[in-house]
Amino acid sequence: MKFNIKRTVLLNALSRVSRAVSLKSPLPVLTGIKFDLQTDGLVLTGSDSDISIQTKVTDDIEIIETGSVVLSSKYILEIVRKIASDTISFEILDGALTRIDGGSSQFNLNGTPAFDYPRIDFAKKGTLLQADSAILKRLIEETSFATSENETRPVLTGVNFHAANNQLTCIATDSYRLAQASSPLSEETVFNIIIPKKSLVEISRIIEKDENVDIYVEDKKVLFIIDDYMVLSRLIDGTFPDTSRLISDYYDFEMTVSSTALLGAIDRTTLLSDEAKNLVTLTMNPDRVLMTSNSQEVGSVEEDLPKAFYKGDPLNISFSGKYLSDAIRSINSDKVKLEFSGPMRPFIVKDLEKDDNIQVVLPVRTY
Amino acid sequence: MKFNIKRTVLLNALSRVSRAVSLKSPLPVLTGIKFDLQTDGLVLTGSDSDISIQTKVTDDIEIIETGSVVLSSKYILEIVRKIASDTISFEILDGALTRIDGGSSQFNLNGTPAFDYPRIDFAKKGTLLQADSAILKRLIEETSFATSENETRPVLTGVNFHAANNQLTCIATDSYRLAQASSPLSEETVFNIIIPKKSLVEISRIIEKDENVDIYVEDKKVLFIIDDYMVLSRLIDGTFPDTSRLISDYYDFEMTVSSTALLGAIDRTTLLSDEAKNLVTLTMNPDRVLMTSNSQEVGSVEEDLPKAFYKGDPLNISFSGKYLSDAIRSINSDKVKLEFSGPMRPFIVKDLEKDDNIQVVLPVRTY
Repeated sequence: MKFNIKRTVLLNALSRVSRAVSLKSPLPVLTGIKFDLQTDGLVLTGSDSDISIQTKVTDDIEIIETGSVVLSSKYILEIVRKIASDTISFEILDGALTRIDGGSSQFNLNGTPAFDYPRIDFAKKGTLLQADSAILKRLIEETSFATSENETRPVLTGVNFHAANNQLTCIATDSYRLAQASSPLSEETVFNIIIPKKSLVEISRIIEKDENVDIYVEDKKVLFIIDDYMVLSRLIDGTFPDTSRLISDYYDFEMTVSSTALLGAIDRTTLLSDEAKNLVTLTMNPDRVLMTSNSQEVGSVEEDLPKAFYKGDPLNISFSGKYLSDAIRSINSDKVKLEFSGPMRPFIVKDLEKDDNIQVVLPVRTY
Repeated sequence: MKFNIKRTVLLNALSRVSRAVSLKSPLPVLTGIKFDLQTDGLVLTGSDSDISIQTKVTDDIEIIETGSVVLSSKYILEIVRKIASDTISFEILDGALTRIDGGSSQFNLNGTPAFDYPRIDFAKKGTLLQADSAILKRLIEETSFATSENETRPVLTGVNFHAANNQLTCIATDSYRLAQASSPLSEETVFNIIIPKKSLVEISRIIEKDENVDIYVEDKKVLFIIDDYMVLSRLIDGTFPDTSRLISDYYDFEMTVSSTALLGAIDRTTLLSDEAKNLVTLTMNPDRVLMTSNSQEVGSVEEDLPKAFYKGDPLNISFSGKYLSDAIRSINSDKVKLEFSGPMRPFIVKDLEKDDNIQVVLPVRTY
């Protein structure tokens, strides 16, 4: 393996591919990035076996002799980042010992032979869905934060992607709140899968511009093709819970309020509260909307929302202020509407105008 | 206690005073800030018993009723930071329960009675030294980083301030490297004290503009008066080691080099090395200067310094790259001069022109 490459091009590709690499992988070879120099380009692969990212660099590279090696992700990224020259030369010296030259620096880095690297199948198979990258990014950002951190119910650690009836619906829940985002599909595609949150976060990061994304759905895995990058993710086994009972068709009471004012109120009201719970209470009637919290030990906070508009019978409801903040941020609109059907019933947060992002927060019993 | 105050003025004072507060203080009352409202201003005090900071706010405050209370540093800072109004009102409601009002927010914060707060003596006593704040800041920044993190020899965890012969000399060493900075004194002042690193870092942070600083040195403590702030620090007991043998009068070999080039070379050469040691080797002769490192497991690096100018017999010397980086950064000059007297002798790093900052690095035996 011998080639010269433009430093910034390699750095950009390595930065993205390395995002799949876990430095704590139980399989040591997976802490590295596979360099596979072919006659027409350099294929870079990173993987932690849950998610794998591959790209092929074909421009700004001078290929002298094909070959392959696995280089430590941690070291090769730092070397390419810090070398002070526009072009970097790579050459395998002996076995897997690789010389990396640039500017006044010369590195001899111990690699691992490429045949130790597991075979990863990036074949384009299964059900194909073509999507717009901006919509995919929106669906991920509006849902993935609401997944569960708790591994005891693995299905809740991912986002349910459900295509049916010309609609793609994404749902995430940690059983205390739920996020549901949807988008119409032009074709009649059907699948129902659960994608791990980590994979989605990386996919969202790789999306930088508006373009088409090809998504190939198989039984056990899903492949995203975004520009020059292929991202392969395992799917989470199991059935996603039926969450439809959490969203009613009809709500009795509603409040509309500026997102900034509500976020500010939550921020201040949770200042003195237990960080794990972030419990706040909304006390609402048509004349006044008040957010309060109380910590026996530290003190209490009372926050007026003079510009909130509430319609309905007087209502007191307690819940996690953090979950409401997350919901408002994901809606990303000047005003939000909260819809209630009782002090112990889940309530909804959504945009005033649109229904393509519905956030649900479950109340907390305070007595 | 009852007063109204401009939010930004209080926030600025609290931010600085709170820097003395340790949230893990064994004495719970010291996790708070003492508010002492007098007829002519609000005195704020924070302390962790090693360092105490006090200021008096006299402007932008409307004093309604004097009094005092201790409020949790963590909560009161956040409250004042996040309240959305220009003016904040404080009032003790009952005992130490304090109401804090601003904008649409009302906080009831449980305080601690002020009589539980230890008495801290900020009296101006002892030997007085008047210094320029910029020079004091320079002396601190050029030395404090070289103190020891290891508590087994407490005297090395502070900086030795030694005034004699119309000169103030500051010395810090962790026994692997040494930093010595000095400045002439206009008066004949004599003292020899060791100030904890943490206190010096806070003093350096409080200095924001060029002004006079009064320093009162006593047996067990030192008081710095900087603008409206008083900073009181305990001194470290014991005798600072005699470090004069580490600095020779004469060196046989010298290298001059651009600081940026040398920092870049160290940065790259230590990329593959053990983070705890950061061992690098300089191989120097009048024709070539080379920096290398070698890690059995990971690989090796060779870095040319084509523009370094070396005068002397060929020399190989190994040392911590991090210590040399720290030394170069503290000198803060375009070029540095390194002076050597042998492969196992301490070497010196300094400015090409000036002698008021001398950095010493001890070599490491590599065989």
